[in-house]
Amino acid sequence: MAFVAVDWGTSSLRGALIADDGRVLDERHAPRGILSVPAGGFAAVFDELFGDWMAVPERRCLVSGMAGSRQGWIEAPYCPCPADAADLARHVIPVVAKRIAMVPGLSDSHDGVPDVMRGEEVQIFGAMQLTGLADGVFVLPGTHNKWVRVQGGRVLGFRTFMTGEFYALLGQHSILSRTIDPDAPLEAETFAQGVSRSTQGGGLLHNAFGARTLGLFERMSAAQLASYLSGLLIGEELRSQTLDASAGVVLIGAPALTARYALALEGLRITPRVLGAEATWAGAHALHTALQGTDTSCP
Amino acid sequence: MAFVAVDWGTSSLRGALIADDGRVLDERHAPRGILSVPAGGFAAVFDELFGDWMAVPERRCLVSGMAGSRQGWIEAPYCPCPADAADLARHVIPVVAKRIAMVPGLSDSHDGVPDVMRGEEVQIFGAMQLTGLADGVFVLPGTHNKWVRVQGGRVLGFRTFMTGEFYALLGQHSILSRTIDPDAPLEAETFAQGVSRSTQGGGLLHNAFGARTLGLFERMSAAQLASYLSGLLIGEELRSQTLDASAGVVLIGAPALTARYALALEGLRITPRVLGAEATWAGAHALHTALQGTDTSCP
Repeated sequence: MAFVAVDWGTSSLRGALIADDGRVLDERHAPRGILSVPAGGFAAVFDELFGDWMAVPERRCLVSGMAGSRQGWIEAPYCPCPADAADLARHVIPVVAKRIAMVPGLSDSHDGVPDVMRGEEVQIFGAMQLTGLADGVFVLPGTHNKWVRVQGGRVLGFRTFMTGEFYALLGQHSILSRTIDPDAPLEAETFAQGVSRSTQGGGLLHNAFGARTLGLFERMSAAQLASYLSGLLIGEELRSQTLDASAGVVLIGAPALTARYALALEGLRITPRVLGAEATWAGAHALHTALQGTDTSCP
Repeated sequence: MAFVAVDWGTSSLRGALIADDGRVLDERHAPRGILSVPAGGFAAVFDELFGDWMAVPERRCLVSGMAGSRQGWIEAPYCPCPADAADLARHVIPVVAKRIAMVPGLSDSHDGVPDVMRGEEVQIFGAMQLTGLADGVFVLPGTHNKWVRVQGGRVLGFRTFMTGEFYALLGQHSILSRTIDPDAPLEAETFAQGVSRSTQGGGLLHNAFGARTLGLFERMSAAQLASYLSGLLIGEELRSQTLDASAGVVLIGAPALTARYALALEGLRITPRVLGAEATWAGAHALHTALQGTDTSCP
């Protein structure tokens, strides 16, 4: 029987009706992220958006993303790494009459400092299905980017990078905002200059000021400065990695973002596989299948 | 004869009446930074604040800081490094009837990317006078920190770090702002944890997310998170330096900031000399003296 998958994020949500064999039968988007939902209002929003899909008796639903956080619908405590799809399935939390289940995020720890993700874990298991890769580095660009190590079909661990948020902060609220056009389209050459600058060192706190002076001395246009800053930030992110080039690299995310990471990785002679939103539904399907094999009372 | 020195910044200004021998006879502060002055209004604000001091015939005045930028009173083009006090004196720009002179900032270049300062150059030459040091690393913490290499009384070059601005951006506008109290007083031990974290690598984009998760998992209070983030940023700044510990290190700035840098440098077994606002007036005096020995038509 088909099931429903919902990726419920901070500012928006997406839902899909997925057949038993994994085909996506229907898809919906809504600007109803958890920040827009009043306390106690999650069930009503869910019914409004997916009530018709759920009207079929016994139909199950998997919800992932920030809806499982403390500020969301119901808190699903993080599942610690290493974890595979079966581990994740064992940690789902029933929401309503056991027909809706909340997928937990994953947690990791680096020398005592915790790291967390919510929603990306579904995309990772989906990407394994779609690429057939059980080993590699999976990169999920976004506001808080995730670099994930996968081995034998398990998520060994991951690191978060605030690259997307730093770009927004610098482009909108810093002194750079006076000379930069943060929404300008990518200029590949200027972007590569930024990447190269960061990988040479100097540090982000210093290199970012260059995006001010290059504007001040009229060496770059407002559009070029945006590409340069983007390159500086993604270059800084790459600089912090110890990438094993022999492992496959998989990029998962919006095309405008994955294109930038692909360009930056090209400089390291790494050609990544690139996936988009389809990874979420493939992951939900994998998890739905795993759930049917576990002893949890969830769907 | 006594002269007037004005440090005219972005958000505020300070002025002093300084005797021929360098003693500060009187001092004034006003919240009249260049952003508060309408176009064409600089002379009026100056007269309002310092008209009485300038009423003495032949009295001279040196203005430094952002008042010499394109958005200021009159643009004083940057003096390129390396530069000593005499070089700087040769680049001053007369403002009004040659009794007021605008001190230029300094510029440097790192592999084609410009770097600039305005106002700090006066503090650096003042610090040389006050400490008797003609060689060393001079560090000026602030919104845009400057790390300055000095040799034989000349500024060889410098690098800007946006550390203060990053702290404000992250504490006020990022996801960290939900769990952090950016105005909390320093907790030395938590600050040191942040410094140590950054110097171990991992990168600022990743480490900053730790200041989110440590709050999320209630491992640190809002006040501790502020000290931790401050340590992460200052640690990142130190990580990017190739400090020659044999050279003296001089910190110049507000006590609340220099104390943090002194603490971070302690971990590297470096004991800096520490100066405050007095460096500005000592520098203005050194420059005033240098001006009297040059062939410029300025004071």
